[in-house]
Amino acid sequence: MYTYEELREIVNKAVKNMSYDYESESLFEPVRYLMSMGGKRIRPVMVLMACNLFDNKIERAILPALGMEILHNFTLVHDDIMDRSEMRRGSPTVHRKWGVNQAILSGDVMAFIANECIMATPRDVLTQVMKIYNTAAIEVCIGQQMDMDFEINTFVSHTDYLRMIELKTAVMIAASLKTGATIGMADADQADKLYEFGRNLGLAFQIQDDLLDTYGDPEIFGKKTGTDIVANKKTILLIKALELASGQQLKALNEQLKMEVFVPEEKIAKVKSIFDDLNIRKAVEDLAAQYTELAYASLDGVKVEKDRKEELMKLAAGLLKRTS
Amino acid sequence: MYTYEELREIVNKAVKNMSYDYESESLFEPVRYLMSMGGKRIRPVMVLMACNLFDNKIERAILPALGMEILHNFTLVHDDIMDRSEMRRGSPTVHRKWGVNQAILSGDVMAFIANECIMATPRDVLTQVMKIYNTAAIEVCIGQQMDMDFEINTFVSHTDYLRMIELKTAVMIAASLKTGATIGMADADQADKLYEFGRNLGLAFQIQDDLLDTYGDPEIFGKKTGTDIVANKKTILLIKALELASGQQLKALNEQLKMEVFVPEEKIAKVKSIFDDLNIRKAVEDLAAQYTELAYASLDGVKVEKDRKEELMKLAAGLLKRTS
Repeated sequence: MYTYEELREIVNKAVKNMSYDYESESLFEPVRYLMSMGGKRIRPVMVLMACNLFDNKIERAILPALGMEILHNFTLVHDDIMDRSEMRRGSPTVHRKWGVNQAILSGDVMAFIANECIMATPRDVLTQVMKIYNTAAIEVCIGQQMDMDFEINTFVSHTDYLRMIELKTAVMIAASLKTGATIGMADADQADKLYEFGRNLGLAFQIQDDLLDTYGDPEIFGKKTGTDIVANKKTILLIKALELASGQQLKALNEQLKMEVFVPEEKIAKVKSIFDDLNIRKAVEDLAAQYTELAYASLDGVKVEKDRKEELMKLAAGLLKRTS
Repeated sequence: MYTYEELREIVNKAVKNMSYDYESESLFEPVRYLMSMGGKRIRPVMVLMACNLFDNKIERAILPALGMEILHNFTLVHDDIMDRSEMRRGSPTVHRKWGVNQAILSGDVMAFIANECIMATPRDVLTQVMKIYNTAAIEVCIGQQMDMDFEINTFVSHTDYLRMIELKTAVMIAASLKTGATIGMADADQADKLYEFGRNLGLAFQIQDDLLDTYGDPEIFGKKTGTDIVANKKTILLIKALELASGQQLKALNEQLKMEVFVPEEKIAKVKSIFDDLNIRKAVEDLAAQYTELAYASLDGVKVEKDRKEELMKLAAGLLKRTS
């Protein structure tokens, strides 16, 4: 069995070996820039780990794994434009460095380079993998759309919010695992269990992300907390609070949301105290725990020896207990 | 054999029957808007015509043909953002109607819907078709990049320009024909001949497009001429002129290019008179004729009865003699 570190190394090597042997330097420079920024390589590692569950050899899965990573990075370039993000992994975003037009086009070409990697899937499972990949890609677009719609909607239900993070984040993790299992020649039922594991893990992960921004220890979390509150970001915390609050509490919460001039620390403290009154932290922690449990139950159902699942368990635990 | 009109009708029906049965109305409304604008449906009709050359049945090619049309429309949405185009086929462009972010995302999802259609290619030729399609998609991106680069480059050679229009326009026509031939079970050699036919036809078509903007009869052409000259657009005419001019002529041409305040009609007249002195019209007409000849020579080499090629010949002739 391969460890996480070994697999990440394999992915990094595959990224490095990608030949952008095309005619246009200006088109591929931003692609190289973004792809070499590193990161945890969660999705491609998941492809390889899931394959490794069923097969000691993982070579067949390397190019499809790379395809998933490129697809993910494609969504990052375009999302960063839409969200007007300035920084990504500590470096300027592509559109900030090269302009919006370049970021659109370099992003576009990444989608087709990702296709090319996926097309390198062994013939015996090619059509299944293409379907998993492309369905996930469409769903990620729908998730990003919901996220954009939420910004202008006044009311967002927690059900809609959960569906949004499922589509925007969880399905890519789920699809990566299912892809790996399929290439590893797992039964369809086993591959589906891994998909469910990934989907629930992704949901738990994203919910925790919201929790950390408000309740994380800045020392351990590695960045300032409360930024979501300051920005009125519709996180699961705020959405739950708006659903549960009534009377004076709701009035006070809406006042904070409408305030145009404020001292950030004061706003954070006031919103958090409303969250506390409504027991939001506990409710959201319970929700994350619920998805975590569902994730592990799905993984339990995968019929391979327990010690084969160890690396995947560790990776999942690391994601859920992460401090940054 | 199907006629052009019959095939366009089949394509239009396939477009109409596309189910955007997804969760997000806001994501797919712009897709429907753009796809239902109509147009000549050249690429999907070419897929079907090329298939029909070798096979009386064309059903197998309908979804892949639709995929080519969606891919083409995907490039239009994103190109329109990059080129800041306001109108497309007489209607506001997607980004003008829904904003840039929406146009990026709705464009993105089209790329994956196109994938889905291509994935519906019959298994026996699926990998060949995927490869043709995806290579063309990457090349179109490179072509658009060259086009953007040309806008800021002071010097563009006519070789570079021809390569740009080859990648940006001709390869999609070529790939459509090759796709159809492949689905129609043509030999690889025959499919390649159709690719060459499409490539040369696309080049001739694009060169003629440049000619029409300057020398077309506005009555027949259906729009104002001289707009490229007014905008200093680096067409094959201007590029050739800059290559051939020297001394006083070059100086006069550069003066026109640098002028910031001018009467459009005067600028058009002056640049055209320089073009005339340099015999540009003739040179560019010869170039178009040369590619046209190459195109027909390739089509001649396709080993099917001559009358089977009639519709394709008519479509090609229509494209080259088009007045709008």
